[in-house]
Amino acid sequence: MSEIHRARVPAPRVAPVEIHTAAPALGWYSDNILFGEIWERPGLDKRSRSIVTVAALMTRNHVAQLTGHFNRALTHGLAPSEIVELVTHMAFYAGWPCAMSAVGVMSQVFASRQVNPVGEQSLSTLAAIPDSMADAPAGLPANTGLLDTYREFVVEGDLWKRSGLAPRDRALATFSAIVAQEACELLPDELGRALRHGLTAEELMEAVTHLAFYVGWPKAAIAQRALSTWLTAQAASTSHSR
Amino acid sequence: MSEIHRARVPAPRVAPVEIHTAAPALGWYSDNILFGEIWERPGLDKRSRSIVTVAALMTRNHVAQLTGHFNRALTHGLAPSEIVELVTHMAFYAGWPCAMSAVGVMSQVFASRQVNPVGEQSLSTLAAIPDSMADAPAGLPANTGLLDTYREFVVEGDLWKRSGLAPRDRALATFSAIVAQEACELLPDELGRALRHGLTAEELMEAVTHLAFYVGWPKAAIAQRALSTWLTAQAASTSHSR
Amino acid sequence: MSEIHRARVPAPRVAPVEIHTAAPALGWYSDNILFGEIWERPGLDKRSRSIVTVAALMTRNHVAQLTGHFNRALTHGLAPSEIVELVTHMAFYAGWPCAMSAVGVMSQVFASRQVNPVGEQSLSTLAAIPDSMADAPAGLPANTGLLDTYREFVVEGDLWKRSGLAPRDRALATFSAIVAQEACELLPDELGRALRHGLTAEELMEAVTHLAFYVGWPKAAIAQRALSTWLTAQAASTSHSR
Repeated sequence: MSEIHRARVPAPRVAPVEIHTAAPALGWYSDNILFGEIWERPGLDKRSRSIVTVAALMTRNHVAQLTGHFNRALTHGLAPSEIVELVTHMAFYAGWPCAMSAVGVMSQVFASRQVNPVGEQSLSTLAAIPDSMADAPAGLPANTGLLDTYREFVVEGDLWKRSGLAPRDRALATFSAIVAQEACELLPDELGRALRHGLTAEELMEAVTHLAFYVGWPKAAIAQRALSTWLTAQAASTSHSR
Repeated sequence: MSEIHRARVPAPRVAPVEIHTAAPALGWYSDNILFGEIWERPGLDKRSRSIVTVAALMTRNHVAQLTGHFNRALTHGLAPSEIVELVTHMAFYAGWPCAMSAVGVMSQVFASRQVNPVGEQSLSTLAAIPDSMADAPAGLPANTGLLDTYREFVVEGDLWKRSGLAPRDRALATFSAIVAQEACELLPDELGRALRHGLTAEELMEAVTHLAFYVGWPKAAIAQRALSTWLTAQAASTSHSR
Repeated sequence: MSEIHRARVPAPRVAPVEIHTAAPALGWYSDNILFGEIWERPGLDKRSRSIVTVAALMTRNHVAQLTGHFNRALTHGLAPSEIVELVTHMAFYAGWPCAMSAVGVMSQVFASRQVNPVGEQSLSTLAAIPDSMADAPAGLPANTGLLDTYREFVVEGDLWKRSGLAPRDRALATFSAIVAQEACELLPDELGRALRHGLTAEELMEAVTHLAFYVGWPKAAIAQRALSTWLTAQAASTSHSR
């Protein structure tokens, strides 16, 4: 019975002292590499690293680690209302279940800090969804894009325009979600947007290094290649057009 | 202590009222887009949407959301015995751990509704596994397919022929699992089977739109491209052969 | 309240008797195919199958199944200190959150068996991280490899050289992590290393068959193709160079 009970709950985010006891080398890497070096590197500010980390944790549904990282995000200067928007944004890029689980953790963190970020204005930017979409006939030609219609009106036309989180931060979270789920086929589309919204290539590459620790080396290596290829092609195209 | 305790449990499936309090825009999107529009669209019936949703949740191990969606599936007309078969089917397409976790949730849902779907007949269609496979010599040539042998005898020859769930529903669940884990490289093989078993291209494209909300936009966008490419190639091939 | 409470905890690793009651066919497949055949096949020893399984479970964060499989791993001859190293190794290949969650489960398993694997020597092989890396300037050219620097010094130069787990076992875990997250684009790099460290092509193909049951058929099928393609290319290259 007790073994089954233990199996029912996921492992807690182990307190640092416990990691050092249970797996000293892992504790050493955590202290000296992940927190001692990666988080301290100047190439990406800590607020941005928190956006990257929360986006990656949400994409992979790492609920056990979200409590700590929502708290870190607040410490690093993300406003509570920005966190609400980030969770909402990620519903579209990581999937609804990831957002539903994160809302529960977020609410607990806010309650423990007696934060209430939600004001009356929070729905004011929601555009009406055009009736034409809701009434779209069944049996659409299969290769026309109902998905594209939702993207145009709901995701691009509404979500990205909400005032609660800057487009630059949304682009950083979206980029992280794509790396975390290894959907690098979509990177070319997203990279142009990320640069237009003020992220630099250096910040994105730094984000990939940061993500290596949160989503694993393989996905980061694949993202690094995709990003480098895209940047090289952009540079060639720019130099050619001069 | 209390923080660690909170971190030990994943977030609950937050009750709707709580979502609206904690993240009003997310609640609005849930009510008006996901449940208000997507689930109500005529392009795919609700029973099918439940198959798609449960398959996606199982593939990504979203245990916290399975309670609600097993209940929805029953409401939408999936027989309890079909749900048992769906969970069994998904063991092969999402992996054993996903199925083991889902069995626990499923049993709780059935117990709460006093449903007992399992009769004596449920093992009757299990074909015997050929001894030749169990006795396959070690050191098989590396590029012959032991995996193919299991697929032929166990998955294709046995699982898909079990009477508890129609092949059409198995194909829909399999398609959803592939989209949810972005294994679109396999789509060409599965799409032919899906159409043979009675699914239409329109239903599959509608399933992709539905899945966008459950597995995130990036995977749905990749699946949409793969599906469109395949359909276009099929159409070209058909028109060419006329 | 009770439904929400149930939704808060992931499903337990259901005891075998419960699987047979709730989903008899799934129980039958578990007993007769997964445990009756796959685990018993001679192509890969059980200690290796435990490495493959734990690596796959960690990569996909299947915390609920780790208790049982850490226990199995001990039974199959993995030393407790090897399990600590395996968890540490996987932090890099599956991501930090997966390792943090696994450390908690591992500690519980060790406590229940009164095992304490961690000695004074466990940090002794940690090489100093070169200061040059910590001092790397911000604004590195975007397509140079900070990620590569970490890989060279931390992952390849330090982690892989730690004495607690043989390189052959690290290669097997790394291979499993890549298959489990479908990062097969990286397989060519890793396969050369796996063979150099003493794994055979037959063992790797057997691992893919084993993994089919733990990560699902689609990812195994993709890995099988990638592995076969690589082996064929290697064979052609070898025969050509003779």
